[in-house]
Amino acid sequence: MSKRVLVIYAQPEQSSLTRQLVDVSVKCLTAQGHEVLQSDLYAMRWKATFDEHDFPERANSERLSFGAESAHAYRHRRQTADVAAEQDKVLAADALIFQFPLWWYSMPAIMKGWIDRVWAAGLAHGYKDAGNTYRYGEGAFKGKRAMLSVAVGGPPHDYSERGINGPLEQLLFPITHGSLYFPGFDVLPTFAVYGTGALTAASAAAAKEAWRTRLQNLFEDGPIPFRPQNGGDYTRTNELRPHVAAGQTGLMAHIADSNEAQTQRLEAQVSSRKPS
Amino acid sequence: MSKRVLVIYAQPEQSSLTRQLVDVSVKCLTAQGHEVLQSDLYAMRWKATFDEHDFPERANSERLSFGAESAHAYRHRRQTADVAAEQDKVLAADALIFQFPLWWYSMPAIMKGWIDRVWAAGLAHGYKDAGNTYRYGEGAFKGKRAMLSVAVGGPPHDYSERGINGPLEQLLFPITHGSLYFPGFDVLPTFAVYGTGALTAASAAAAKEAWRTRLQNLFEDGPIPFRPQNGGDYTRTNELRPHVAAGQTGLMAHIADSNEAQTQRLEAQVSSRKPS
Repeated sequence: MSKRVLVIYAQPEQSSLTRQLVDVSVKCLTAQGHEVLQSDLYAMRWKATFDEHDFPERANSERLSFGAESAHAYRHRRQTADVAAEQDKVLAADALIFQFPLWWYSMPAIMKGWIDRVWAAGLAHGYKDAGNTYRYGEGAFKGKRAMLSVAVGGPPHDYSERGINGPLEQLLFPITHGSLYFPGFDVLPTFAVYGTGALTAASAAAAKEAWRTRLQNLFEDGPIPFRPQNGGDYTRTNELRPHVAAGQTGLMAHIADSNEAQTQRLEAQVSSRKPS
Repeated sequence: MSKRVLVIYAQPEQSSLTRQLVDVSVKCLTAQGHEVLQSDLYAMRWKATFDEHDFPERANSERLSFGAESAHAYRHRRQTADVAAEQDKVLAADALIFQFPLWWYSMPAIMKGWIDRVWAAGLAHGYKDAGNTYRYGEGAFKGKRAMLSVAVGGPPHDYSERGINGPLEQLLFPITHGSLYFPGFDVLPTFAVYGTGALTAASAAAAKEAWRTRLQNLFEDGPIPFRPQNGGDYTRTNELRPHVAAGQTGLMAHIADSNEAQTQRLEAQVSSRKPS
């Protein structure tokens, strides 16, 4: 069945691995009969900084409250054209794919600024004017899928269960859980290619092939089983009930199947030797 | 003993709690006899996006490699003036304090773009042209301190050990460990104020008082005991040796005293009731 997929990417260099993987996305999804929308943030000269210019008609001209002004601008359709256009693309899409190089264990600033600005109050948080009532499994984007595709400079063992950087899925939790599952997306396990600083042609080809497989299963693969806020696992103050993930603390307790192996099997790990 | 402290902040609204806490920083540190440098990112109209304009004289005009061009520009002093000025301030400082509202469980894009651009190759990574040899406890910023001061909209129980958002120190690990300890800073436990969306005057006053205490102990408090890469806890492939944090996986295994209570005691938690 034909779907619509929005590919958002943050890498200006056409020959980079990230851009090669974006090309694979466009070709592979189009060949599957899907419609592909694109947000090439560098080419769009996307404004990264969320500031007073995001609110051309202020609710309060004296004091800049980002939350209050974002809610006001979204509700009264007084957002800037660039933000409204991106929201329309997100709302029209069945799935979002974010493709970027990992910079300091997170997104490049230009992509963080896409989240900061496009994820308006009333849409991505404060849904239905009900504070935090609808989030983590509920929200404006429920029924849509999202996935990260990340080019990582370092070697995979740095990101292993006991590797010095920390496991990639935990480093990206503020994005996968906090920025995507929060407003309602089903989030697929992250696709990562390691060692991109010195990738051989063979490794790049293997990465692209692994990415094609993930794209072919974009609407079939199971999402990360994050626990829904209103599914019975949490107390009224949004803490895990004692019998849920008993004795566990921290980020991973919010994934229903604590057997991390399941999601890690899906994570394609393509690496090259690290240059010395 | 008089020291030099650089305060970097990302909040344009003067009446915001973040800016009130910045004012406390300036006054309190000055009163202690320290010299205070400031980077008011919004007022500076800091360029958030790391792009080709960061490299006025390219090593390779055909292909934009951020790593290679950053190393080239840093080594040959061909960086943009704004980036070089910030590096000079960091190198002149004995401590850095980052003050910001938590947006989507991370820094505002304008501050992420400060890290992306100022943390040049050859300085903050790839130190001494030795790849990943000197990092996590070693690097250009060894001997300096760093601390985050964060204004959090949500209530503290959302960030508790088993709270739905995940514990704040784990959400901020990509910054504290990955962006600050990595290039050599001793990183102090994060100072957080919760419930800033509806803070009473009394709670704001209590937050400022708690912040003063942290500032008075800026050079005395113990840092988060992250494990140094080259201190014996890691194998040659940078994974924890079997006897270290035996059986543990994930982010928290990289903190030497796994009794998180110690760092959490230092974390001032000031909260108000969450508006319904």
